Amino acid sequence: MKTLIKNGTIITSIDRYHGEVLIDDGVIKAVGTSLNVQDSVDRIIDAKDRYIIPGAIDVHTHLDMPFGGTVSADDFNTGTIAAACGGTTSILDFAIQNRGESLQQGWDNWAAKAEGKAVIDYGFHMIMSQYNKEIGKEMRTLCDGGITSFKLFMAYPDVFMLNDGDIFRIMQHAASLDAMVSMHAENGSVIDVLIEQALKKKNIEPTYHALTRPSSLEAEATSRALVLAELAGTTIYIVHLTAKGALDAVTRSRNHGHLAFAETCPQYLLLSQDRYDEPNFDGAKYVMSPPLRPKSMQPWLWQGLANDTIHVVATDHCPFSLEDKALGNTNFSKIPNGAPGIETRVSLLHHAGVINHKISLHKWIDLIATTPAKIFGMFPQKGTIAPGSDADIVIFDPKKTYTISAKTQKMNVDYNPYEGTTVQGTCDIVLSRGNVIVENNQFVGQIGQGNFIKRSTCNKKDFTMPTQV
Amino acid sequence: MKTLIKNGTIITSIDRYHGEVLIDDGVIKAVGTSLNVQDSVDRIIDAKDRYIIPGAIDVHTHLDMPFGGTVSADDFNTGTIAAACGGTTSILDFAIQNRGESLQQGWDNWAAKAEGKAVIDYGFHMIMSQYNKEIGKEMRTLCDGGITSFKLFMAYPDVFMLNDGDIFRIMQHAASLDAMVSMHAENGSVIDVLIEQALKKKNIEPTYHALTRPSSLEAEATSRALVLAELAGTTIYIVHLTAKGALDAVTRSRNHGHLAFAETCPQYLLLSQDRYDEPNFDGAKYVMSPPLRPKSMQPWLWQGLANDTIHVVATDHCPFSLEDKALGNTNFSKIPNGAPGIETRVSLLHHAGVINHKISLHKWIDLIATTPAKIFGMFPQKGTIAPGSDADIVIFDPKKTYTISAKTQKMNVDYNPYEGTTVQGTCDIVLSRGNVIVENNQFVGQIGQGNFIKRSTCNKKDFTMPTQV
Amino acid sequence: MKTLIKNGTIITSIDRYHGEVLIDDGVIKAVGTSLNVQDSVDRIIDAKDRYIIPGAIDVHTHLDMPFGGTVSADDFNTGTIAAACGGTTSILDFAIQNRGESLQQGWDNWAAKAEGKAVIDYGFHMIMSQYNKEIGKEMRTLCDGGITSFKLFMAYPDVFMLNDGDIFRIMQHAASLDAMVSMHAENGSVIDVLIEQALKKKNIEPTYHALTRPSSLEAEATSRALVLAELAGTTIYIVHLTAKGALDAVTRSRNHGHLAFAETCPQYLLLSQDRYDEPNFDGAKYVMSPPLRPKSMQPWLWQGLANDTIHVVATDHCPFSLEDKALGNTNFSKIPNGAPGIETRVSLLHHAGVINHKISLHKWIDLIATTPAKIFGMFPQKGTIAPGSDADIVIFDPKKTYTISAKTQKMNVDYNPYEGTTVQGTCDIVLSRGNVIVENNQFVGQIGQGNFIKRSTCNKKDFTMPTQV
Amino acid sequence: MKTLIKNGTIITSIDRYHGEVLIDDGVIKAVGTSLNVQDSVDRIIDAKDRYIIPGAIDVHTHLDMPFGGTVSADDFNTGTIAAACGGTTSILDFAIQNRGESLQQGWDNWAAKAEGKAVIDYGFHMIMSQYNKEIGKEMRTLCDGGITSFKLFMAYPDVFMLNDGDIFRIMQHAASLDAMVSMHAENGSVIDVLIEQALKKKNIEPTYHALTRPSSLEAEATSRALVLAELAGTTIYIVHLTAKGALDAVTRSRNHGHLAFAETCPQYLLLSQDRYDEPNFDGAKYVMSPPLRPKSMQPWLWQGLANDTIHVVATDHCPFSLEDKALGNTNFSKIPNGAPGIETRVSLLHHAGVINHKISLHKWIDLIATTPAKIFGMFPQKGTIAPGSDADIVIFDPKKTYTISAKTQKMNVDYNPYEGTTVQGTCDIVLSRGNVIVENNQFVGQIGQGNFIKRSTCNKKDFTMPTQV
Repeated sequence: MKTLIKNGTIITSIDRYHGEVLIDDGVIKAVGTSLNVQDSVDRIIDAKDRYIIPGAIDVHTHLDMPFGGTVSADDFNTGTIAAACGGTTSILDFAIQNRGESLQQGWDNWAAKAEGKAVIDYGFHMIMSQYNKEIGKEMRTLCDGGITSFKLFMAYPDVFMLNDGDIFRIMQHAASLDAMVSMHAENGSVIDVLIEQALKKKNIEPTYHALTRPSSLEAEATSRALVLAELAGTTIYIVHLTAKGALDAVTRSRNHGHLAFAETCPQYLLLSQDRYDEPNFDGAKYVMSPPLRPKSMQPWLWQGLANDTIHVVATDHCPFSLEDKALGNTNFSKIPNGAPGIETRVSLLHHAGVINHKISLHKWIDLIATTPAKIFGMFPQKGTIAPGSDADIVIFDPKKTYTISAKTQKMNVDYNPYEGTTVQGTCDIVLSRGNVIVENNQFVGQIGQGNFIKRSTCNKKDFTMPTQV
Repeated sequence: MKTLIKNGTIITSIDRYHGEVLIDDGVIKAVGTSLNVQDSVDRIIDAKDRYIIPGAIDVHTHLDMPFGGTVSADDFNTGTIAAACGGTTSILDFAIQNRGESLQQGWDNWAAKAEGKAVIDYGFHMIMSQYNKEIGKEMRTLCDGGITSFKLFMAYPDVFMLNDGDIFRIMQHAASLDAMVSMHAENGSVIDVLIEQALKKKNIEPTYHALTRPSSLEAEATSRALVLAELAGTTIYIVHLTAKGALDAVTRSRNHGHLAFAETCPQYLLLSQDRYDEPNFDGAKYVMSPPLRPKSMQPWLWQGLANDTIHVVATDHCPFSLEDKALGNTNFSKIPNGAPGIETRVSLLHHAGVINHKISLHKWIDLIATTPAKIFGMFPQKGTIAPGSDADIVIFDPKKTYTISAKTQKMNVDYNPYEGTTVQGTCDIVLSRGNVIVENNQFVGQIGQGNFIKRSTCNKKDFTMPTQV
Repeated sequence: MKTLIKNGTIITSIDRYHGEVLIDDGVIKAVGTSLNVQDSVDRIIDAKDRYIIPGAIDVHTHLDMPFGGTVSADDFNTGTIAAACGGTTSILDFAIQNRGESLQQGWDNWAAKAEGKAVIDYGFHMIMSQYNKEIGKEMRTLCDGGITSFKLFMAYPDVFMLNDGDIFRIMQHAASLDAMVSMHAENGSVIDVLIEQALKKKNIEPTYHALTRPSSLEAEATSRALVLAELAGTTIYIVHLTAKGALDAVTRSRNHGHLAFAETCPQYLLLSQDRYDEPNFDGAKYVMSPPLRPKSMQPWLWQGLANDTIHVVATDHCPFSLEDKALGNTNFSKIPNGAPGIETRVSLLHHAGVINHKISLHKWIDLIATTPAKIFGMFPQKGTIAPGSDADIVIFDPKKTYTISAKTQKMNVDYNPYEGTTVQGTCDIVLSRGNVIVENNQFVGQIGQGNFIKRSTCNKKDFTMPTQV
Repeated sequence: MKTLIKNGTIITSIDRYHGEVLIDDGVIKAVGTSLNVQDSVDRIIDAKDRYIIPGAIDVHTHLDMPFGGTVSADDFNTGTIAAACGGTTSILDFAIQNRGESLQQGWDNWAAKAEGKAVIDYGFHMIMSQYNKEIGKEMRTLCDGGITSFKLFMAYPDVFMLNDGDIFRIMQHAASLDAMVSMHAENGSVIDVLIEQALKKKNIEPTYHALTRPSSLEAEATSRALVLAELAGTTIYIVHLTAKGALDAVTRSRNHGHLAFAETCPQYLLLSQDRYDEPNFDGAKYVMSPPLRPKSMQPWLWQGLANDTIHVVATDHCPFSLEDKALGNTNFSKIPNGAPGIETRVSLLHHAGVINHKISLHKWIDLIATTPAKIFGMFPQKGTIAPGSDADIVIFDPKKTYTISAKTQKMNVDYNPYEGTTVQGTCDIVLSRGNVIVENNQFVGQIGQGNFIKRSTCNKKDFTMPTQV
């Protein structure tokens, strides 16, 4: 099966040219100004007046994830369909080792969730909630099997939080495996005291979710995680960074000569803490951790993108229905943490970033596709448009607008944090390994056609090493 | 004329894949894993085990330049041949408006120097040594004609230095033309006092060149230039940045939300101030402005490359024969300023940067080709390997080594600052607009085949704008 | 003549105790909890419920100063009476060397202005508007005669501005004399371009005074001045610092191991740029250089006081009548620069600083008396309450309030920038060398009793040297 | 009993004058140039050619402290005699609440150790190794009783370390009591992993004490402590700060508007990590926590003193005999932590700081007497020479030199880290509350005459509050 996409503007993290893409057997075979192959292909897609961009990669999703007595609203079926319709053709979801379980059990559980459901390619990070020698041995097994990143928590003491000693041991072991450590960096011990005190004072509304998770505790934990990583020699990836203090810690670490990465999410770039004050418990829609921050934090995040201290924009997609959110209507700490986002990231960042002149067209691709692919060992299979890469491609109309709404979204949840927002830039056609899976904003692919991505470890040679100064 | 380069690893600022490049009529037509065009092409080049990289761009050269009673040793013939043999396929040289001349005269003079001599494509920056309304009008003419960058000096009071008021007026006018201002940032007034005082004390040796141009005076002038540029709203490019203080000024400016660029050169990354103490007046070989700095400055420069505060590595190629250098043998201030470098940059940076794990393979290309092309309005015609771009291409052997020596170099000068240094990585074959001009380290092209590059202004959309924080 | 002040709380930059001060022949003889000397003294002053503080020192005044065709409204008579009533018992005024004059002429002129008029002790800084060898020799004469600080301008090109070369030469010479260099740091060349452009656009209102003197040009010049001072090895004192960027430059310089001092004024701590928008040309009241800044600058200045990067709060007292201000009613650049402040500083800083918990009681004394005395070679004669020091003393009521008004002020000018402001803390009794010169807010001393203060050079041992880091 | 000290130069944190001090009933009655009281006093001390300075205060001592199976070598008898001979007239020692004990028990134990033995005045901080509601209530009792500072540990997991939640709760409670929290800031969890790993590799020598406690783990913990303190609203005092990273954290916290204090010790200013490599297990002499750091850290500490981010120089006096040190001769982690210093601080800092022009004479007094008294609620009773203050006074000869040696020292330990060092500046005569207790370098006072110092809480009005910027 050969496909030719013609007549579009190919955009990568660095290049921009009018031309054609030839796909053969799911892989990009050639790109050119005019390939003269129209007669020999099975299908021709005309990309006139549109961009031809790499399929986006979302390295931070929580599909079908149990949380506080419920489960996130999107499973690998609905979630990956929504992703695809939004231009995302690969995800990395977080498999969980619950305490008492082996890593393998976590993997098996997540493989079962994805199997037969995912419509785009997917890989896993492994959340570790416990550590000992046996588990250490399993880490190697996972790396060999293509799970090359391990996520740790400095928050949620009763569920996931590890103490600094164990974090450090895991980091040392990950370093020896060349594996990546991802970190949820908030000081859970202090947050739990603040929550307890808030509840004691009957401060139960959603806004107290934000007030009991101040950005200084994110900055503290981020700084701590980076110091431990430097000492252990592990490459580290800070998930969902939201605050100036945390960003400063990343800069410090890189000035120590350490290769540290950070991710932020559209919600931290675009929404702010005042959302928690929306009436009728609507503030609960935005309950996620870390919480939304004051608007004054946003310029720091954009500058982080500009000066290369934030390297990825992912989603932390973890939607809960309003009914589930209502579990916390008399106690903010019972509101399931998370919000939908897997479907809207590509367009939102195009609009708020590119159209509003905050990031370049190329940086947009870099943040959502190329750099995440490189960091997490998927490049050049994923993340670019180049000969030899998987033909995960989006035909993107940079002029067409659409209005975000829960009514029309593909995500399986009954609200959207950006409800009513009109954005410029839409994903017209989406190909996954050469197959058209989205057309006219409808999923037209096959359920379960997504493959597990067996990832390599991060190729450090892809990155310019910071120098100690 | 069609050429196929096959069997190599194509490296761009972002991509890396095994494949082929098809060239037609001087332009890249297609790239692919296997283009199946062997039969229809005129020439096939086998790049087995080698990189296929974009021809490098050197945006800072001084060919055939009068200085202190002599003239730089390379003209557009010898200089561009040396460039080509070293993998550089485009240069931007500095045309000079002498005081009393119009800009047009400067342009005409430099056009005449290049005409019929250059073997690779070339463009000009315009050095302005004077400003008034008439000259302001000429700036527009130059922009229309493809000279879109103007270089100013804060040093050399008697020759080039402009006062802050005139610098500011030029910047404002450049901003209105969307033109780039390049700046030689050293405080010439104070330097001249220091030189006068040194000579009065009979401190005449080459080492006093460095001691009378301390890095703090570069930092001062850089900071001043950036403040003025911010106020004027001009995009600015700091040439040959050498020092931490100057780098900090760039960071500050970008944190003010200003789009500022900086360049360094291999000599500042690799050589240090102790060279001036070489016996037998050999220190004179390294007399350039700014001077070489203490070794402790080098990590800051590498970190500047890593954290995107230095964007380009160019050469400031401006060689003088040892005989010319001897003009200053009883007075360091009479030593012609400048050193050769146009031929060695690509290999040196590959060796010291890529092989020594300081920068990634992609960053290497970015610093010497892609970003300079974008900053100076030559992209995508120059600076990348993509369909539609000029077929300026180097077949680079990343394993082969060679030893730098004045005896074997193409540059028309009787010494080399890196004499005896063995570097890994050589330019095997060089194509300019599809023509093979270097083979077996010999120039095989045609004298005068270089074209003038009519540049656009810097496309700011190529860059992620810094945000004010 | 012996005087005992009893029953008060003595406050110095470090100490705080209830007790008595014994004065003999104009000098503090002893302090104690109870000196048992009531019977042997000529006069007893009861300081019940009040502070006994050192007379304040204002090291930045412009009395009887010609400017733009007029002259500042206070001469040494009215100005020093106002100072005294406001708790200030010593001033350093700026004598001026006009271009073409010798320093001695400047001194003679100013000595004549003060002679027979000043009611408190006074010294001079010397403003240098020109430099050559002869003038260099005079600098030594002045130092020997007690004028140990030289003020230079980087603004006002046609009147006072020196080029960087001359500034540097003066700094070197000052360093050899151990003299202090004071700097008015604004980039005059660029400001003049901005003024010319504003006027050309008919932007003539007072607000354009601020808009044509942006804080970045103060930051630039401050940074430049400090770099030159470091290189020259001169201790330097930045007058009237108003802006974050300038403050950062001071911090950088101190981190280079350089002893740099900075001064701010109450107007920059308390007033802001919006004042220029007052109707009816009232904005002209606040026209001074540097101009008032946006309110957001104020926290940086307070933090500068807290972290010891700003060392002195002086006034830059330079009042002009509203009639004089009207010289610029169709051209902001003709408005005489300056505003009244000599009388209000002590109370304003007590209220805004001490009462509002921004600075400690001790810091207040330090900023207005002790540190200025040390920096400018008057300590321990002036600036503290200690045995052996001049009995320049204020009995300060920290609870009594008063309302600032042009109607009641002693300053010879028909407006006050703080009109209507009620402040807590008043100077009840003021002694100059043991003589009561103010009582019940009335001057009760003798005209002309002020002595010239023959100052030493700054005793660097009084200061902890910054270390290069 | 009345004493007159005459003919000396009185030095305080701010003042310097030739004169006399009159003492009556243990309290300073008056100071003056000439008090004319010779006939009415009981004793006259001639301070000719010498300084009269406030008795120094050492706020960090560990007398008679159990540690790792042994006990620190100085008890309150030998320790306070050594202190007195070295010019220190007040100490704050650390009482310990062992786990399972009440705070009151800790206090009682320490009161018993001091009672009848101390020869100078003393107070206690309370080390808390556990927290709950009951203990919270005791904190108030201690504050009422004059123990107004509580020390917590982030190191020593098995003995003292508290988790972040408990640290935060204690801080909040301390804030409500206006009490000070002191912090030993090293990340104990990670250090313990490093120690375990070192021992496993048979790395047993003293140098591994330093290598398993890297400065980054001090920086991390300091940063964390400050974030928690800011959030809790507690004033905090970081003990024995040794490293740039920790210092930067203090600067950050003060720029957040938080009142944070830091202490360093002479050993960190003067000794360096290479000491651990001394042969014959002599490295054990310097085993203390935090360990000595590389020499490159020292400029940062001196700059911290200069720019007011380090406020106190105390000793962490905690000597162990060489026999005790030998407990760790096959396992560095068994070496008792601590070294002697109570006797040498005043002279060492005079020599290395004042004589070597790093700090001013006044800063010297400030660091060892005035500021510690203010921070810990002892001012103006202690820490200055002013009427009404306790007559704790040292007659200090700034010219006389002596050579530090274990043979001649008063400290009850058989080595000295500065053995053989000659310092300029000796404590000739020492008075405690008006009694001469040291003369001719011999203790001549009475055993047990030291009183418990019932301290107030820190008077925040003594300090200029940092402003959030």
